[in-house]
Amino acid sequence: MVTKLKRFLIGRPMKSHQLAEEKLSKLKALAVLSSDALSSVAYGTEQILLVLITLGAAALWYSIPISIAVLGLLTILVLSYRQTIYAYPSGGGAYIVAKDNLGISTGLVAGGSLLVDYILTVAVSASAGTDAITSAIPILHDHRVAIAILMILALTLLNLRGITESASILMIPVYLFVVAVFILIIGGGYQWATGHVQQAIPSTYGTAVHGITLFILLKAFSSGCSALTGVEAVSNAIPNFKTPAERNAAKTLMMMGVILGTMFIGISLLAYAYGIAPKANETVVSQIASATFGRGIVYYFIQTVTAAILFLAANTAFAAFPLLAFMLAKDRFMPNMFTVRGDRLGFSNGIIVLAILSAILIIVSGGDTENLIPLYAIGVFVPFTLSQAGMMKRWITKKPTGWIVPFTINTIGMLTTLTISLIFLVTKFSQVWLIFIFLPTVIMIFKKINQHYRDLADELRIDIATEKPAPKGSVIVIPVAGITQVVRNSISYAQSLTDDVVAVYVGFDDESIKKMQRKWEEWNPGVRLIVLRSHYRSIVRPLMKFIDTVEWKTAATDHVTVLVPQFITKSRWHNLLHNQTSLLLRAYLFARQDVKIATVPYRLKK
Amino acid sequence: MVTKLKRFLIGRPMKSHQLAEEKLSKLKALAVLSSDALSSVAYGTEQILLVLITLGAAALWYSIPISIAVLGLLTILVLSYRQTIYAYPSGGGAYIVAKDNLGISTGLVAGGSLLVDYILTVAVSASAGTDAITSAIPILHDHRVAIAILMILALTLLNLRGITESASILMIPVYLFVVAVFILIIGGGYQWATGHVQQAIPSTYGTAVHGITLFILLKAFSSGCSALTGVEAVSNAIPNFKTPAERNAAKTLMMMGVILGTMFIGISLLAYAYGIAPKANETVVSQIASATFGRGIVYYFIQTVTAAILFLAANTAFAAFPLLAFMLAKDRFMPNMFTVRGDRLGFSNGIIVLAILSAILIIVSGGDTENLIPLYAIGVFVPFTLSQAGMMKRWITKKPTGWIVPFTINTIGMLTTLTISLIFLVTKFSQVWLIFIFLPTVIMIFKKINQHYRDLADELRIDIATEKPAPKGSVIVIPVAGITQVVRNSISYAQSLTDDVVAVYVGFDDESIKKMQRKWEEWNPGVRLIVLRSHYRSIVRPLMKFIDTVEWKTAATDHVTVLVPQFITKSRWHNLLHNQTSLLLRAYLFARQDVKIATVPYRLKK
Repeated sequence: MVTKLKRFLIGRPMKSHQLAEEKLSKLKALAVLSSDALSSVAYGTEQILLVLITLGAAALWYSIPISIAVLGLLTILVLSYRQTIYAYPSGGGAYIVAKDNLGISTGLVAGGSLLVDYILTVAVSASAGTDAITSAIPILHDHRVAIAILMILALTLLNLRGITESASILMIPVYLFVVAVFILIIGGGYQWATGHVQQAIPSTYGTAVHGITLFILLKAFSSGCSALTGVEAVSNAIPNFKTPAERNAAKTLMMMGVILGTMFIGISLLAYAYGIAPKANETVVSQIASATFGRGIVYYFIQTVTAAILFLAANTAFAAFPLLAFMLAKDRFMPNMFTVRGDRLGFSNGIIVLAILSAILIIVSGGDTENLIPLYAIGVFVPFTLSQAGMMKRWITKKPTGWIVPFTINTIGMLTTLTISLIFLVTKFSQVWLIFIFLPTVIMIFKKINQHYRDLADELRIDIATEKPAPKGSVIVIPVAGITQVVRNSISYAQSLTDDVVAVYVGFDDESIKKMQRKWEEWNPGVRLIVLRSHYRSIVRPLMKFIDTVEWKTAATDHVTVLVPQFITKSRWHNLLHNQTSLLLRAYLFARQDVKIATVPYRLKK
Repeated sequence: MVTKLKRFLIGRPMKSHQLAEEKLSKLKALAVLSSDALSSVAYGTEQILLVLITLGAAALWYSIPISIAVLGLLTILVLSYRQTIYAYPSGGGAYIVAKDNLGISTGLVAGGSLLVDYILTVAVSASAGTDAITSAIPILHDHRVAIAILMILALTLLNLRGITESASILMIPVYLFVVAVFILIIGGGYQWATGHVQQAIPSTYGTAVHGITLFILLKAFSSGCSALTGVEAVSNAIPNFKTPAERNAAKTLMMMGVILGTMFIGISLLAYAYGIAPKANETVVSQIASATFGRGIVYYFIQTVTAAILFLAANTAFAAFPLLAFMLAKDRFMPNMFTVRGDRLGFSNGIIVLAILSAILIIVSGGDTENLIPLYAIGVFVPFTLSQAGMMKRWITKKPTGWIVPFTINTIGMLTTLTISLIFLVTKFSQVWLIFIFLPTVIMIFKKINQHYRDLADELRIDIATEKPAPKGSVIVIPVAGITQVVRNSISYAQSLTDDVVAVYVGFDDESIKKMQRKWEEWNPGVRLIVLRSHYRSIVRPLMKFIDTVEWKTAATDHVTVLVPQFITKSRWHNLLHNQTSLLLRAYLFARQDVKIATVPYRLKK
């Protein structure tokens, strides 16, 4: 039943060598890895305008130089990550680059920051997608949390099916969104060029505005930079690309940079040209679209695919989180289970853990995740900075021919992303202070896990030359409750292994004890019977005491094995009809004793 | 932690021989066993009046002859159950008497009916108690279900502490209630005798009333009979009495009968004398009390203890259900776990199961259990009837000297309770039809369980004379993942038991397989290494296949044992850091194979 349901939902298991077939072409990779970055176009310009409007409509023209600055930063990031891809062809996320060049602790800061960030991405995107749905269908408003969780569930199943399948499905909305935005930019540009647009608000370019300060400009710039989250996804995911992986990844990154940059600056220019100011109940994109095309079919097409892409931004995290978790687990900073590929060759555990943690975040916040956005942005820019710093160190150390140019690119990138991180910290401290709790906690967990694995390796390491197996004697203890086929079966088995077998009976009163002793003598199975008396009607406690004694007496020379019979019933409900003494006994023995436990199944025929 | 909490809530474990100390004196038994019956006084008269008032106030005088008829039935029931107590000194509930005289199926009808009934009792009483609380404190009205469940939880803990302790606590409200009702009857009688009462409604005794029919009189009578539920509790619980158990039980029953009868007829007479008609928002008892004493301290005392006793009625079920379940389990109609005495010598499993089922009933019905009351009444009168019929059969079969008198008593009792059952069926079919689903279901479950236990006994039975243990050879299979101390430990252990040991390694690719083979040769532990290749990254599946093959080849001559190492970590969270392959392997092996599983603990030091 469970197996069938699983097959239906995620498909048949795949062989390991099919991994190569699961690799992504450039077009598919762009769909899977860029939805987070591209979706930022839907709100990037608006974030800038929201800061500027506080100084009045006249200040809105600043959005143009700020957008150009963001575009510059995007260029630097893309170029710099392109360098990283070639330098780390087996996957060069911020974690790897920082670890490799700046030491493991710095790597963990970058890695931990990104992990937390991916969880935030999923929670924020699913909530944003839900808001889009509930705005359209207000009756669903009371079920926001349930809808967001259903969305996460859908993405989880899609990703468990494997990356190529999810890529095939995701390509459609991602490319439709790109088409929609270009239709908007071209249509809007045409309308403006042909003079069909009446500027709603006068905001002459270059006019000095009263009250403008560096602080506000920086705040607007840093808000605009939230459009750049998701750019690092490609460099993390190089192993998912078809060979030549690094070249394909680099090309995909460039494609993404060009598309993202064009869409972002296009929207910003249109917003300025149309004199659009941010409104509480209508997005900037919606305003441009309705001004350009009216509220017709084109408008609704643009709005629908925008909602879709906002929701799909979460999918970037579903591609990136399991890979990062895999890398951290390979370095023994996360549990081993994140290194295991599932039935469909994805890192299923990473996918499932991401889904659970983001669902918890949604439940805890009641689906109201807006306050998490700044946290999410700083969680991206910290690893950006560390990654660039790592690359700088690398150029200085290796000094390959012509290293000055890439070093300069990385230095500019590092300084810019560092500045943005600091601006975030200063301008939005009330919303990002949680990072100072999250990050140290995550890093402490990483280190604890690593310590445990290292201790374990030390403990388990063996000197092949000298340490060989050394057999000892063996005592087998069989708890018996009467004389039945089960007991006969157990004794037969024990006698096959050793001559030193002892049966133990726990009685509650003299009568039953005497009866058992008499019957045992009569049966005479060739095994000594030890009788214990229980005052508290517990079978397990006197048994444990007896086993303690046996162990204490013989542990030096013998292995002590306790033989526990286990009924295997035909129907599951029959299990309810048996005192689960054997389960209890096993649990106790595991917890306290160093004895071995042999479970002898007794399969009931009826 | 858990142990400490348990000790705090239910007290220290008690030795088996302390069972005698847990026996009940007559006064305590009355408190534990009569709360259900006595609490009926609070609503019995009212039930009669509610039927009569449909014909107008003039019909209310019929409550007197009807009450006398109920009193007559009470006398018959008490006398008849007194006979049962002496006939079945080890506990003669309806189940035992019916089973013993009328066959096992009839016994199961009686037993099943009572079991369902006890669950209803708890649900109905807890809801009634909750209603009393929320009437006083309306702000709690939205939390009715939670309050009712808290009440059940309190009763559960009280009963898990043991019956003498719960009796000591329960004596107070039960006896306060008796005192309160007698104060009411004496005070009310005095007021009436001294002529201080003005009759509110004229209802002259003996006046013919238009529209009166036998149907209505019977309906009123059967409603009044709901006051008799709980009378059978004493005869079920004889084993809980101090010796001489049957004499003490008989005396307790008589005491209960006298108190119940006096209180019931007293309330009925007062209600008539005061000309009280039932009101929607005030109980009959409350009307009498306020007419007699005004709304002063005496009035509130009476109301408070009435609410308390209504709630405590549930406790009778907590005493009776586990005992009945024990008897059914002893006869193998219910799971064995109901025969086990807990730490405090009560049948804890019965107590807990009753609590859970009644809590579910409350949750399902949303705390609105009024509709269950008729179901609950018929669930009592069916076993009443069967019990009496059983006694009749007994007298006829045994014919002891002077059997005619007790036979007559039982015959009258049987005919009366049968009639009442039929009246319930006819007059309240819409509310009691569920019994035709519940009862057959419960009986079918009983029979299924019995069948399983009988099959099991057949299967496990052994011929002591001829069937002796017969040792065979032994093969031990050790799954290995590398060469570590764990593997060395496992091989040492296996070699202590047999010479036929084989290690199995599951590899995912050629490289790791070759490396393992080379290293194994170098180590040379004296055990052959078998190498399997897994295409689906599953370790368990290839292993299972291999074990299948080994079993198929050797099962006739050898026991096959799979040796599974189990890490015992120092901190519980460390368990998360290990692939739980051994758990998974064990689960698979249990489900499908007849191999033995030896778990070798490896205790990690750090």
